Amino acid sequence: MSILVVGSVAFDDVTSPSGSVKNILGGAATYFSLAASYFTQVRVVAVVGKDFGPEQEEVFRKHNIDIRGLERAPGKTFRWGGTYAENLNEAKTNYTDLNVFETFQPRIPKEYGDTEFLFLANIQPTLQADVRRKMSAVRLTGCDTMNYWIKGTPRELAETLKLVDVLLINDTETKMLAHETNLPRAAQKVLAMGPQTLVVKHGEYGATIFCREGAFGMGQRPFRAPALPIEEVQDPTGAGDSFAGGFMGYVASQKELNRGVLKRALFYGSVMGSFAVERFGTERLQSLTREEIDARFQVFRELTHLE
Amino acid sequence: MSILVVGSVAFDDVTSPSGSVKNILGGAATYFSLAASYFTQVRVVAVVGKDFGPEQEEVFRKHNIDIRGLERAPGKTFRWGGTYAENLNEAKTNYTDLNVFETFQPRIPKEYGDTEFLFLANIQPTLQADVRRKMSAVRLTGCDTMNYWIKGTPRELAETLKLVDVLLINDTETKMLAHETNLPRAAQKVLAMGPQTLVVKHGEYGATIFCREGAFGMGQRPFRAPALPIEEVQDPTGAGDSFAGGFMGYVASQKELNRGVLKRALFYGSVMGSFAVERFGTERLQSLTREEIDARFQVFRELTHLE
Repeated sequence: MSILVVGSVAFDDVTSPSGSVKNILGGAATYFSLAASYFTQVRVVAVVGKDFGPEQEEVFRKHNIDIRGLERAPGKTFRWGGTYAENLNEAKTNYTDLNVFETFQPRIPKEYGDTEFLFLANIQPTLQADVRRKMSAVRLTGCDTMNYWIKGTPRELAETLKLVDVLLINDTETKMLAHETNLPRAAQKVLAMGPQTLVVKHGEYGATIFCREGAFGMGQRPFRAPALPIEEVQDPTGAGDSFAGGFMGYVASQKELNRGVLKRALFYGSVMGSFAVERFGTERLQSLTREEIDARFQVFRELTHLE
Repeated sequence: MSILVVGSVAFDDVTSPSGSVKNILGGAATYFSLAASYFTQVRVVAVVGKDFGPEQEEVFRKHNIDIRGLERAPGKTFRWGGTYAENLNEAKTNYTDLNVFETFQPRIPKEYGDTEFLFLANIQPTLQADVRRKMSAVRLTGCDTMNYWIKGTPRELAETLKLVDVLLINDTETKMLAHETNLPRAAQKVLAMGPQTLVVKHGEYGATIFCREGAFGMGQRPFRAPALPIEEVQDPTGAGDSFAGGFMGYVASQKELNRGVLKRALFYGSVMGSFAVERFGTERLQSLTREEIDARFQVFRELTHLE
């Protein structure tokens, strides 16, 4: 089944202990769609400027990603520059030039009307809600958000959360959203806000999925996927979006949505996140094969399974 | 097989968001031996003062723990007071009264001479090494340490590490010991210092075991056990020592030491850590049954296993 992602496409300048790159293709929608493209057909709604050319288009086309929803606006594409220090936990933002992204109003091409799976990457919550309301064929909506919206636009975010099925955020965001420092209690509070399912990303420690009782046959107990201990993390940018792409892409590729599918989706999310950080930008995500992905899935299984 | 633990026995005052307790039995050797006692016969070498009475002795005796190595010294038992804030990650130490522990010189009773498994809890590295050298029948030595010794007595610690088989420390300690911020690279450096096996404890995220290639048939790949997301953590004190007790106790209970045993040991360590934090002090560890332990082992399996 097709999955539509709505979010940012960007050019990034990234410095990490492994080196420095300039002007590389980035943005949540880019990482998401490349990761998801190994599992299912992907559609993109985003905005770019005049500096987005055939070279960048080719990256999407090569992965059979439908970019009819990629709006060309006068001006420059969103640009971000960040530096990761030795521990790689968090980027220091050097600059953020929103450019054409500042006035982004997602427009959904008519041809996307039959989309059944939707991922709302990290944009203003009201825009996320608008998109969801326009997509009447959607069966499952995934959603990301960040501290900026949790603190700045809590009411708008609360409205959006009522419309989403799966929320994918990290530990800090979960606790901030719930006003609760204990993770499982915070997770229960977030589930009460709307989503049936919450995926909490723990960075280098993997991710945990919490479901409302009865949702997707998951029962009350959480499930946890590991992350792979990686010897050289070149660039953590986009790891969360790649995780979401693997998770949602795998879900969209399956006929049914049940406990087994969600568990494997969590593993595939973790697998795609682990590939993303091995090289700068989207380099590693551009050149994967499904065989490599499934081989790493097996490594993740061996990493955690007793037999 | 019997396992001997050398470490501290203490009285603790603990405050956490769940409440406050005074004068409760604590100390690394106490948590370790209670946790290990569900798997194998435990022997203790430690020192206590005149304030350690029949009530405390009874806690050990009930679990068939051999305390012939528990030295009674003039003065008071080691006392520690700590407060955990809302996030429970780290205790603020209110006071540390070493008392009789300050001049602790481990004395090994003759009857302990046939001990095959040894755990050196967190004490001065030279004392750890001395104990190890005295125990000629020991087949496997586990060891803990802390920032204080890593920074303060690196040469002494390096000598100790050459004598141990399994080092059990946390992420921060691993990175500090290796002077390396990347965990898998840090793990390789620590393994090069002596231990065949390194168990890195991640607190609420579980633990990962790294082995030297070929050691115990583990191969080069790490293995990871989860921690259970717990809704009410009353008291994190002793979680790491309880983890070590579960891990080493299970290992000592097995005829062979191979890949499967180490993996299950990591799960049992995590299980015992999860029980320890549910109540203040050793309360939960005192009242467990092997059936409860194995039931939680199954919960941990379901939490991480795809099938």
